Amino acid sequence: MVGIIMGSQSDLKIMSKAAEILDELKVPYEVTIVSAHRTPHRMVSYAENAINRGIKVIIAGAGGAAHLPGMVASITTLPVIGVPVKSSNSIDGWDSVLSILQMPAGVPVATVALDGAVNAGILAAQIIGSHDPKIAENLKKYKTFLREKVEESVQKLEQSGYKNLL
Amino acid sequence: MVGIIMGSQSDLKIMSKAAEILDELKVPYEVTIVSAHRTPHRMVSYAENAINRGIKVIIAGAGGAAHLPGMVASITTLPVIGVPVKSSNSIDGWDSVLSILQMPAGVPVATVALDGAVNAGILAAQIIGSHDPKIAENLKKYKTFLREKVEESVQKLEQSGYKNLL
Amino acid sequence: MVGIIMGSQSDLKIMSKAAEILDELKVPYEVTIVSAHRTPHRMVSYAENAINRGIKVIIAGAGGAAHLPGMVASITTLPVIGVPVKSSNSIDGWDSVLSILQMPAGVPVATVALDGAVNAGILAAQIIGSHDPKIAENLKKYKTFLREKVEESVQKLEQSGYKNLL
Amino acid sequence: MVGIIMGSQSDLKIMSKAAEILDELKVPYEVTIVSAHRTPHRMVSYAENAINRGIKVIIAGAGGAAHLPGMVASITTLPVIGVPVKSSNSIDGWDSVLSILQMPAGVPVATVALDGAVNAGILAAQIIGSHDPKIAENLKKYKTFLREKVEESVQKLEQSGYKNLL
Amino acid sequence: MVGIIMGSQSDLKIMSKAAEILDELKVPYEVTIVSAHRTPHRMVSYAENAINRGIKVIIAGAGGAAHLPGMVASITTLPVIGVPVKSSNSIDGWDSVLSILQMPAGVPVATVALDGAVNAGILAAQIIGSHDPKIAENLKKYKTFLREKVEESVQKLEQSGYKNLL
Amino acid sequence: MVGIIMGSQSDLKIMSKAAEILDELKVPYEVTIVSAHRTPHRMVSYAENAINRGIKVIIAGAGGAAHLPGMVASITTLPVIGVPVKSSNSIDGWDSVLSILQMPAGVPVATVALDGAVNAGILAAQIIGSHDPKIAENLKKYKTFLREKVEESVQKLEQSGYKNLL
Amino acid sequence: MVGIIMGSQSDLKIMSKAAEILDELKVPYEVTIVSAHRTPHRMVSYAENAINRGIKVIIAGAGGAAHLPGMVASITTLPVIGVPVKSSNSIDGWDSVLSILQMPAGVPVATVALDGAVNAGILAAQIIGSHDPKIAENLKKYKTFLREKVEESVQKLEQSGYKNLL
Amino acid sequence: MVGIIMGSQSDLKIMSKAAEILDELKVPYEVTIVSAHRTPHRMVSYAENAINRGIKVIIAGAGGAAHLPGMVASITTLPVIGVPVKSSNSIDGWDSVLSILQMPAGVPVATVALDGAVNAGILAAQIIGSHDPKIAENLKKYKTFLREKVEESVQKLEQSGYKNLL
Repeated sequence: MVGIIMGSQSDLKIMSKAAEILDELKVPYEVTIVSAHRTPHRMVSYAENAINRGIKVIIAGAGGAAHLPGMVASITTLPVIGVPVKSSNSIDGWDSVLSILQMPAGVPVATVALDGAVNAGILAAQIIGSHDPKIAENLKKYKTFLREKVEESVQKLEQSGYKNLL
Repeated sequence: MVGIIMGSQSDLKIMSKAAEILDELKVPYEVTIVSAHRTPHRMVSYAENAINRGIKVIIAGAGGAAHLPGMVASITTLPVIGVPVKSSNSIDGWDSVLSILQMPAGVPVATVALDGAVNAGILAAQIIGSHDPKIAENLKKYKTFLREKVEESVQKLEQSGYKNLL
Repeated sequence: MVGIIMGSQSDLKIMSKAAEILDELKVPYEVTIVSAHRTPHRMVSYAENAINRGIKVIIAGAGGAAHLPGMVASITTLPVIGVPVKSSNSIDGWDSVLSILQMPAGVPVATVALDGAVNAGILAAQIIGSHDPKIAENLKKYKTFLREKVEESVQKLEQSGYKNLL
Repeated sequence: MVGIIMGSQSDLKIMSKAAEILDELKVPYEVTIVSAHRTPHRMVSYAENAINRGIKVIIAGAGGAAHLPGMVASITTLPVIGVPVKSSNSIDGWDSVLSILQMPAGVPVATVALDGAVNAGILAAQIIGSHDPKIAENLKKYKTFLREKVEESVQKLEQSGYKNLL
Repeated sequence: MVGIIMGSQSDLKIMSKAAEILDELKVPYEVTIVSAHRTPHRMVSYAENAINRGIKVIIAGAGGAAHLPGMVASITTLPVIGVPVKSSNSIDGWDSVLSILQMPAGVPVATVALDGAVNAGILAAQIIGSHDPKIAENLKKYKTFLREKVEESVQKLEQSGYKNLL
Repeated sequence: MVGIIMGSQSDLKIMSKAAEILDELKVPYEVTIVSAHRTPHRMVSYAENAINRGIKVIIAGAGGAAHLPGMVASITTLPVIGVPVKSSNSIDGWDSVLSILQMPAGVPVATVALDGAVNAGILAAQIIGSHDPKIAENLKKYKTFLREKVEESVQKLEQSGYKNLL
Repeated sequence: MVGIIMGSQSDLKIMSKAAEILDELKVPYEVTIVSAHRTPHRMVSYAENAINRGIKVIIAGAGGAAHLPGMVASITTLPVIGVPVKSSNSIDGWDSVLSILQMPAGVPVATVALDGAVNAGILAAQIIGSHDPKIAENLKKYKTFLREKVEESVQKLEQSGYKNLL
Repeated sequence: MVGIIMGSQSDLKIMSKAAEILDELKVPYEVTIVSAHRTPHRMVSYAENAINRGIKVIIAGAGGAAHLPGMVASITTLPVIGVPVKSSNSIDGWDSVLSILQMPAGVPVATVALDGAVNAGILAAQIIGSHDPKIAENLKKYKTFLREKVEESVQKLEQSGYKNLL
């Protein structure tokens, strides 16, 4: 199971996309709110217990001085995927990106693009899929789906000319 | 097995640290050079065959306009960890960080810190460890080792005073 | 002929401006969608065949971790012009600019300004015009047109005063 | 008493300057190492107990994805001063600055300049001095000392001419 | 008492949040406008007299080349909290952040996040609370309130599912 | 007389503010459009003749890769004030700021803030005022006006309370 | 013939690499110094005459507020390749990159990486090679050479193990 | 007379270049140290008296959160030229550049390039030269000298070939 956590309810609009893609890829998950700064003890306890509760990967999203992914990674040995969220007071997202990405040697966070919750979900599925052939198969189909969507737009463009697609 | 690849032999100084930590964590790996820009066909073929050759995770390091991690991720469904390398002509590392991190929805790269090859190795071990209790155990020991190293320096500091540690 | 490609249909709004200016300069072109990350094999095949299909210059536009221009340039010996597109999840465009501009020695991409598709079209015409006197003549006329447009606004300003132009 | 903590022994070279200025200003302090990422439980316990141990202000220094100051501030109600340290793998210091500065509403960290440990010490003294007239007096003398040092260099410059001071 | 000053009436929309949180925490304060660049003598006199008027902490907000917090700190020995305001002509807030944060050794400004007036208010309360048990108690309650707000959203999410919270 | 020039009619919205403040300060000026990139010969001739036409200071505004101020400064010995304009395709204004500010030794441009046309006008008046007591007097009055406007808002705030000014 | 120009003799260390690669690719070229800011008339005359002197492509390198490539492009209809040079007073190269890259619509500069003179040379050869089969052939051989160099390092690594290559 | 001031004796290495070029251009000047943060009253008094002491232009250099140029400009109506100095603790110079450049409407500082003291001197001479034909003449000669230096290096390059100049 994948654990999806986020620093605040306001991150849900972005982070729910991780849940949606996991639904599509048929990977079970749970969603909850864990704030590193406002509920530090809840964070410690979430991170300590995740592995025993059967969580295989944690996806953690946060904005600004985003400490949630790195702090969870400091406690658990599970892979932690960090989603930098471009929150309202962020300095163009640089703060969340750098607070999550630049972890010191010893405590990695697998960082994805700014607001990249979809990719966090896929990465979680890939981690599980590296040992679960059924999920691996779903990922392969998803890659085919991505390719086919491009091929469709190529056909539309060739049939109607680029000017009709503007 | 973990596949460690890099764009150029000059990246080896950084990327060898991923191999060293995998040695410590007793995770098997292979190391080779695959250049997205100078050997694109070799890259395609490496990415296509990795899964069948028993690779479970790919660690890809590159500098500047670093396309190797993202291009490998576009071909394989395996999890790909990207290491932005601060190469000599890089603009302070921003180019490698952004070229690896900011992947479009559908094709994630698990990005670690600039020159963060140690963390790439640990993250690969965590991915394998999420299904291999022995590796998970090694990761737990490594976390203990990190903690004990800090505790030792605390003791040294307390015994001799901070001025003697300068 | 100029080949205009882009990573996604959503880039068409920007990239169509390259086509429009090539229309004006009477340079033949084709437009299609080639995604480095979702259709990597289509990209390889497009880049391999371009030269034999009579393409003289390739214009490639992409956003975020924009790998399309550089990867095409890694395969073909044709000049490749890269257009960094400021896509919706971009970090202010810096990611696309740096992923396209900072290519390693050996594999150049002729990068133009952020969203600079008009200039990509003109540059393609200049490349063709460096051996085709008719296109060179069209470029000269276009330069005259640009100058005259400024001169007209100078006249308007002098006749009516700057306050009436606000 | 002021509590000076830092993420790693390697930060001591910078952070010892906070201790030195507190010595000068006759403010008692303690120095120790607390790593948010390698000793998270030690960090929680340090932050929880500080107030009862008589600590009035905490100075926390860290580099890269610097979570120590913010996490300590999430647990204690004491004022926490954060010193962004420009560590070796830092992206020019931006990562430590933004990870410390951009705290969410509710949990402030009083951030000083990059490597600004001297100012962290003075700020701690100002906080204590806002209720301790003796420390306030020492701060006033320190301000006079700073002014006099400038005035001396003005005199030297006027006496010998600027060329002799190069 | 806390002195809240700002460079211009247009900063009031942001800076009033410092006043509001001080109201909540029951810390007395005053609010006025002091412009470093348009009323330099008023600024000098405000900074010189603050300590004798019973001010314990100064909160100063300013945008662009924000000199107010640093200049006030150059004159008084009171702790000065700086709030970088993202004014209309700011370059994404970087100018205000750096003009306030990067003070030279000897003259600290306790800098909070961009537009972080709420945190400036809390920090001021923490400084006063480090010697006033009643304010310390209010801060503790406020921390509990922050935690409970998160716990409530956790419950809502668990009861209704994340999709109903979007 | 002050010569106000700009690269394009679209800069007029910003640059007209330089004219307005010169009107207020009773400094004569002229306004026209000179594009470095579309009318390079007009630019050379404008810069060569300005001094003989009685121009004392040139204000030049431009956006993006803003070459107008620096190129004019390369030709004339008059002081040139550069206004970086945040044009539509600019990367947050950084391109115009750096293209104008970072002139090589030998050819200065007096750069003002992004979109800072008002300040360009005042600076031009200061340059003329350094030898014209009447303009110097107008500048002094303008400084008084700025101060009084702040003092008025202080009074309003004190009379009605800050909440009524929000 | 390719015209290689640069703003100052100090740029020769970087720019000579464009000449070297053109030597390798057997493309004739000339090298000279043309300063936009110190010899503006020489620049205008170089740009005006280039096409009649048989120049097919211009490579222009400059640092800081780098106006040379863009100003030459404003005068000639030839393709102009811009090399941002990281000069001593540059702000990490950002100034040269943005001054060259961010040209307004109508006047393109084909920008290569910071200090990317090798790629400028190859790009010039590609432009000429798009109509000259012999140069195209040389470029193909160069691509093979790049590939073989990678393959050699792959073999060395496989034979001796990565540790012996450090 | 030109007044050259700087925040600290350590700025003298950079700022002395302004004095040297004024020597060359035969413009009288004085040099002294005025710290906004350590000698605020000296700064106010310097700025207030400058105009009556016959100063026509003030050159002010400072690093980090550089408030000296802007604060002097807030007090005097003389033109103030700001030199951002890249001091040791600066974040790559961005802090000094933005603290000096981004002044609010009403109080301009004529900003030159990072460490651009030579250009500050020339700009001061241009301001004086706009009313003093002798200084204007010296500036013209200086421009000729700059041009001739480039022409000499052109000749050297043409005579000996670029390879002998490396």
